[in-house]
Amino acid sequence: MKYFKSDNTAAVSREILQAIDRANSGVALAYGADRWSESLDRAFGDFFGKEVRVFAVASGTAANALALATFCPPWGTVLTHAEAHIERDECGAPEFFTGGAKLSLVGGAGAKISPADLTARLAWFEPHVHGVQPRMLSLTQATERGAIYTPQETGALAKIAHEHGMAVHVDGARFANALVAQDVDAADLTWKAGVDVLSFGVIKNGGMNAEAVVFFDPTRVADFEFRRKRAGQLLCKGRYAAVQLLAYLESGMWKRNAERANGLAKRVAAAAPQWLSEPSATNQVFMKLGRERIAALSKEFGFYPWGPAGSGEARFVCSWDTPDEDVDALCAALGKLK
Amino acid sequence: MKYFKSDNTAAVSREILQAIDRANSGVALAYGADRWSESLDRAFGDFFGKEVRVFAVASGTAANALALATFCPPWGTVLTHAEAHIERDECGAPEFFTGGAKLSLVGGAGAKISPADLTARLAWFEPHVHGVQPRMLSLTQATERGAIYTPQETGALAKIAHEHGMAVHVDGARFANALVAQDVDAADLTWKAGVDVLSFGVIKNGGMNAEAVVFFDPTRVADFEFRRKRAGQLLCKGRYAAVQLLAYLESGMWKRNAERANGLAKRVAAAAPQWLSEPSATNQVFMKLGRERIAALSKEFGFYPWGPAGSGEARFVCSWDTPDEDVDALCAALGKLK
Amino acid sequence: MKYFKSDNTAAVSREILQAIDRANSGVALAYGADRWSESLDRAFGDFFGKEVRVFAVASGTAANALALATFCPPWGTVLTHAEAHIERDECGAPEFFTGGAKLSLVGGAGAKISPADLTARLAWFEPHVHGVQPRMLSLTQATERGAIYTPQETGALAKIAHEHGMAVHVDGARFANALVAQDVDAADLTWKAGVDVLSFGVIKNGGMNAEAVVFFDPTRVADFEFRRKRAGQLLCKGRYAAVQLLAYLESGMWKRNAERANGLAKRVAAAAPQWLSEPSATNQVFMKLGRERIAALSKEFGFYPWGPAGSGEARFVCSWDTPDEDVDALCAALGKLK
Amino acid sequence: MKYFKSDNTAAVSREILQAIDRANSGVALAYGADRWSESLDRAFGDFFGKEVRVFAVASGTAANALALATFCPPWGTVLTHAEAHIERDECGAPEFFTGGAKLSLVGGAGAKISPADLTARLAWFEPHVHGVQPRMLSLTQATERGAIYTPQETGALAKIAHEHGMAVHVDGARFANALVAQDVDAADLTWKAGVDVLSFGVIKNGGMNAEAVVFFDPTRVADFEFRRKRAGQLLCKGRYAAVQLLAYLESGMWKRNAERANGLAKRVAAAAPQWLSEPSATNQVFMKLGRERIAALSKEFGFYPWGPAGSGEARFVCSWDTPDEDVDALCAALGKLK
Repeated sequence: MKYFKSDNTAAVSREILQAIDRANSGVALAYGADRWSESLDRAFGDFFGKEVRVFAVASGTAANALALATFCPPWGTVLTHAEAHIERDECGAPEFFTGGAKLSLVGGAGAKISPADLTARLAWFEPHVHGVQPRMLSLTQATERGAIYTPQETGALAKIAHEHGMAVHVDGARFANALVAQDVDAADLTWKAGVDVLSFGVIKNGGMNAEAVVFFDPTRVADFEFRRKRAGQLLCKGRYAAVQLLAYLESGMWKRNAERANGLAKRVAAAAPQWLSEPSATNQVFMKLGRERIAALSKEFGFYPWGPAGSGEARFVCSWDTPDEDVDALCAALGKLK
Repeated sequence: MKYFKSDNTAAVSREILQAIDRANSGVALAYGADRWSESLDRAFGDFFGKEVRVFAVASGTAANALALATFCPPWGTVLTHAEAHIERDECGAPEFFTGGAKLSLVGGAGAKISPADLTARLAWFEPHVHGVQPRMLSLTQATERGAIYTPQETGALAKIAHEHGMAVHVDGARFANALVAQDVDAADLTWKAGVDVLSFGVIKNGGMNAEAVVFFDPTRVADFEFRRKRAGQLLCKGRYAAVQLLAYLESGMWKRNAERANGLAKRVAAAAPQWLSEPSATNQVFMKLGRERIAALSKEFGFYPWGPAGSGEARFVCSWDTPDEDVDALCAALGKLK
Repeated sequence: MKYFKSDNTAAVSREILQAIDRANSGVALAYGADRWSESLDRAFGDFFGKEVRVFAVASGTAANALALATFCPPWGTVLTHAEAHIERDECGAPEFFTGGAKLSLVGGAGAKISPADLTARLAWFEPHVHGVQPRMLSLTQATERGAIYTPQETGALAKIAHEHGMAVHVDGARFANALVAQDVDAADLTWKAGVDVLSFGVIKNGGMNAEAVVFFDPTRVADFEFRRKRAGQLLCKGRYAAVQLLAYLESGMWKRNAERANGLAKRVAAAAPQWLSEPSATNQVFMKLGRERIAALSKEFGFYPWGPAGSGEARFVCSWDTPDEDVDALCAALGKLK
Repeated sequence: MKYFKSDNTAAVSREILQAIDRANSGVALAYGADRWSESLDRAFGDFFGKEVRVFAVASGTAANALALATFCPPWGTVLTHAEAHIERDECGAPEFFTGGAKLSLVGGAGAKISPADLTARLAWFEPHVHGVQPRMLSLTQATERGAIYTPQETGALAKIAHEHGMAVHVDGARFANALVAQDVDAADLTWKAGVDVLSFGVIKNGGMNAEAVVFFDPTRVADFEFRRKRAGQLLCKGRYAAVQLLAYLESGMWKRNAERANGLAKRVAAAAPQWLSEPSATNQVFMKLGRERIAALSKEFGFYPWGPAGSGEARFVCSWDTPDEDVDALCAALGKLK
């Protein structure tokens, strides 16, 4: 079976394992008091060209939920796309971590939020105690349908959010893929566009089990560290998480891996453009194949049907280590479908 | 100013005050161990023609949230209409009481859920740990737009819910108005149609500060009583809540008051049928008047604009004690609008 | 049976019912926008000689839990006595409302906390993310064993609390009894002594179903109003709660009722001083009677055994409306015990 | 500086890194659907001689909190020692994960709970809605003061717990140390003694970032998997956690590492038996050295003062990889103290 199910099925990049090996010697203070953890702020600060605060956690779900809980009170709501990972794939983690805040959903093609739709959704809220109050906007970059927000698009949405007193979160589980897809600077796609906090994904793009939460205003971290500890996300041997985040940036693997994954996806998309249900911008390809073609492909390839049951859509994900020959085979098979 | 803002602005029926006075003598054990509280099960059992368990709480929000928390785990979701009170007017109480469960929204005219829309929404959920699991359906009877579900409609929705392992809740803040509007039996509109738990509203229809939560299967009350205590909703001097609920049923005021309120609304609707944005079934009237007519009417009448900001819609609510002359004046004013 | 179980078994004072009757006419805006609710700040401000913010809720448990949740974050802890109501009698309401904060217990005779014990307990906490952080001190006035804190004692404890960055809460379910017991000014026993927020009990002392939460610094109410709504404690027809609180202060019944209850308890205590297990300062009397005397008295009198199972201690509570002849009978029975 | 601060400061055993390397090839399904994760139940079943269900999580705090949340409802309480990790070192994680349950504390020398103290504490609870209900007993094995429970002691406590309807949890962050300290069978120290769920620690004893939660009754896992996902503890690339747990058992490193750590601690304890404040059974040594000796030792050795501020007690922890020469140096320094 050749797998295009998820970039989470990929192995870990050699750079990560080597960094772990190098750190595996002697004593290092626990719970993030080691020298690797203590250098995270600087390393990510260099990457983003700005003083930041950075914290490691064990999963993307934890990164998102803790970031949201830092800015959204229990009586608040997070505006996000109806197909966002935080809404559909985290079993209510944001609600758990925030103490019962709401997610308020916005539609939009490509799992992208438009300024008009955001403004329309906001019109439903009133500043009184009867309803929850919009306190965060959460964007997914790249989106759950592989699309990207440009710096300009991000900035337009962030402007609306800030005007309404909301903080802006980006779920960047595939942030590297979004960066290389549009060849922009990390700063332009984040804090310069108004992003307040970023879940900077590492795992899907070659990491093992560490993600970064990046706060772009070092004075607005609030009680994040208490919440992280309380969630069992302050890792005992912090060095093994920190070195993953450091290697990710410093080896350049964030870029190499994302470029390869995006490139493979481009080939898949080009193999059967007539079926594409989304323009393919990053490392995911969506095709409206119908039930029978999906069944036929499923004999040789592992991938997920997408959308509500019976929609006839399929998702193919390329990862940093998807074998070239698997992509060749998929392209060939897609080309032969009729 | 003549008020059509809400049935919560009404006074308390004489029957309620008299019942409180009669109970106000000597010792009664606290926290629901008094004889009035202890007779609630029987009184509501008679009303519904079935053995039930009934609990008093201090507000409709508490009734709804505690009912939902009894059946919906933190990792569950409650399917409900996008305009439901539990979604829009309770500041996240369901999320708070359930420990962070989700509300998953369904659309539909008249703030009513249709079987087709419910089924379509359910198709998005999958039985795995990544997403929350649908565990409850919550209907509003009468709906937030004054519409009603018939026993047949309720039964069709409950059947779908039960087939998906969900319990069925009815937010009956205006349940009496829904009952008299269609002249059906309380049993037919609840347990015979598959309703598992009902927030039986008293306050809006002449009560003071007690609502009933009615469980139609006495064996499925789970930990409701612990949750009620923990929420500060087990009232210290329980007799003063219990007698309100008893008087509500036994004096027949539930019916008299609802009939009067519905009747007044019918007159308002008839005064300007051309503006109606909803058919008026109970004690609420919705009209698409536009911004200018709303401004004109607002000089003499108190009422709420409805829908998102700028929609030009208005809601008029008649209550059990709205003066006839206020209705006369509103009808006249509506008739003169052009 | 003559009852000395609880002051919650008492009826409601005539002044309260009359105030309700007077308010029961015509329209009043819902959810606290009525003129009675809007005058609460002023009335309580007059009482305490200071600008305050005051909110009505439906139970003492709700008053305490909401007050604590306003100042104590989920990762905080509330220092309180091991026998406090919030620890032993509210089924975890503080933990629920705070989103999982802790209560950290302090011992002490008479259910009173001493400065030395408070300081010793605080020595266990360290300012790091591994442990919860002390953020509130909650005192009970009068205590669960009928004792009182003087203004000086309150001030000494509040000073320690404030030096540790903690806010000071007083659970005043029997605050009126504590006031009249020592004939001090309400200001001296609260904000002048450093109290930040008071649950001002009304129900046990002649009220029906409304308690007041009083914030002594109007600028530090934080998100109380959102939390109250979300807890189902913002009452729909707010006037019926507000008038109870107003009548309580303005009629002087808070004083009359507390004086009578305290006086009756003094008689009970004097009837068998040899059994007293606590000095009786307010309206509760504790006696170490042993199992057999308890059994004998239980035939004629309703009261609770106290302490852990088998302790042989009993509690007698006098309320504002305990009949004189019931007290006579209890005194006589106690006098005859051997 | 020679470190005796914590076994969390240790590096990762070679066996763990090798297992990770071996698994790092090709595709493995995400979120625990890989073959390593799927073999956990069998491997731990072999180890314990019983069918079990086993789940990997990223930290000991998460293991404990998720285990407790599975059996303890929000209105329940967990009885545990006042010095337990779940009480003092997890920033309220149990309260967070359970939705606000309480921890009710029991004293006892060596941070051990005795049957008599447990029974006395239980006598405070009553089966009514006013107080939280005891639903779990959580023991720490080895305790926070290095002591161990024998199978008989565990059994006696578990019997009391079960008679009161409570489930039994063991926080086994140092479970391997407790096993080798008394040379008993893992089965005897767990399910045969009545333990229902075990947090089986790996990290402190040579692991990297995976702990196991072991349920001894496969039918009583309840909603653990939903809660784990929702807490961000279902690891994306599950194989890297699973292979740590497998290597831990199958390589025998659990035993080798614990034996070495315990042996080193024995040497430290023997170097200055006169200062011992606890008998040293496992890999922790507690000494009442006083402030000045602590200051003197602190120049060369890293270790934590213990107990409340100013207690003059110190804790020395030996880990699986503490260098022999560091132990030599500490023993020599202790021997020279006067």
